[in-house]
Amino acid sequence: MGRWEPDAVGRLRIAALDLFGTVGYEETTVAQIAERAGVTARTFFRYFADKPEVLFDGSEHLEHAMVAAVAGAPEKASARQALDAGLDAAVELLGERAEFAQRRSAVIRTNAALLERETMKMARIAEAMAEALRGRGVPEPQASMTAQTGVAAFRIAFASWVEKPSTSLAKTIADNLAVLDSIKV
Amino acid sequence: MGRWEPDAVGRLRIAALDLFGTVGYEETTVAQIAERAGVTARTFFRYFADKPEVLFDGSEHLEHAMVAAVAGAPEKASARQALDAGLDAAVELLGERAEFAQRRSAVIRTNAALLERETMKMARIAEAMAEALRGRGVPEPQASMTAQTGVAAFRIAFASWVEKPSTSLAKTIADNLAVLDSIKV
Repeated sequence: MGRWEPDAVGRLRIAALDLFGTVGYEETTVAQIAERAGVTARTFFRYFADKPEVLFDGSEHLEHAMVAAVAGAPEKASARQALDAGLDAAVELLGERAEFAQRRSAVIRTNAALLERETMKMARIAEAMAEALRGRGVPEPQASMTAQTGVAAFRIAFASWVEKPSTSLAKTIADNLAVLDSIKV
Repeated sequence: MGRWEPDAVGRLRIAALDLFGTVGYEETTVAQIAERAGVTARTFFRYFADKPEVLFDGSEHLEHAMVAAVAGAPEKASARQALDAGLDAAVELLGERAEFAQRRSAVIRTNAALLERETMKMARIAEAMAEALRGRGVPEPQASMTAQTGVAAFRIAFASWVEKPSTSLAKTIADNLAVLDSIKV
């Protein structure tokens, strides 16, 4: 299959979402996804380790973008400012893919194993953000608490945003973080 | 099999930790755990669905204790006060089992699948706490942010406490929550 396959990855992702939404996640095979995308199953497995990864490989881009933004925040930025830089990077990335994110979430919600994988990916992102904050010299427990709280604000905002993409994801994240005022004693 | 087995559950838990610590988690079989505890494998499976559950069935007690304390906090208690009641319940439960908690954590740290199960159990506890807060009339996103932040403070404190059980788990949790001051803008 040495022939050139323009954006095979993009087509596979869309084909998968189309089939998961109509036929169902469990019922869809990799062969069907590949066929719909006009490629072979072998091409699918060149890009994705297994069927669920067609929904999750974007998490790594998200993690890298967030970590890079935290690490790249101005030297004098506070932990919160570095966190905000990371969250802004996530908003920017997802804003470009609102429809994809929404359709993807609709599939994940239907399946306990997918929800579990999503929870694990977000836990890994929070760990990576904490590591990036420590790399900036933020001490513990501030680094972990900042990262965990920020990722919680992101996840909770993301869940409302996929329901109602007309709202501002950035504003909802900020609103969630503002709630911290009521949590401190 | 019908005979009385005083505290078979407790003996199975200890036998499992003994073997996981010496032989290794992967290498230990349910039959070996049962033998060491002086019961049959059938008895093991009467109490635990699978080998890892011998490490994780306590999570449900923890969840129930925390949720009950949140739900049972005085009617006028704030979201933070209800959260604190839940965290206090966790501290009380774990304080009685410090050595067990510590040995259990040492095993979990060695195995990616166990770490994943632990992450999922804690995610479930955070969800249950958010639900308990909503049940008290705490609106969203305050309920979810309070529960997620509180569970993060608990997890991070727990990780230091199992390393150094002479420290106060309650104080470390409170210190972690105090860090929120630096996270709000």
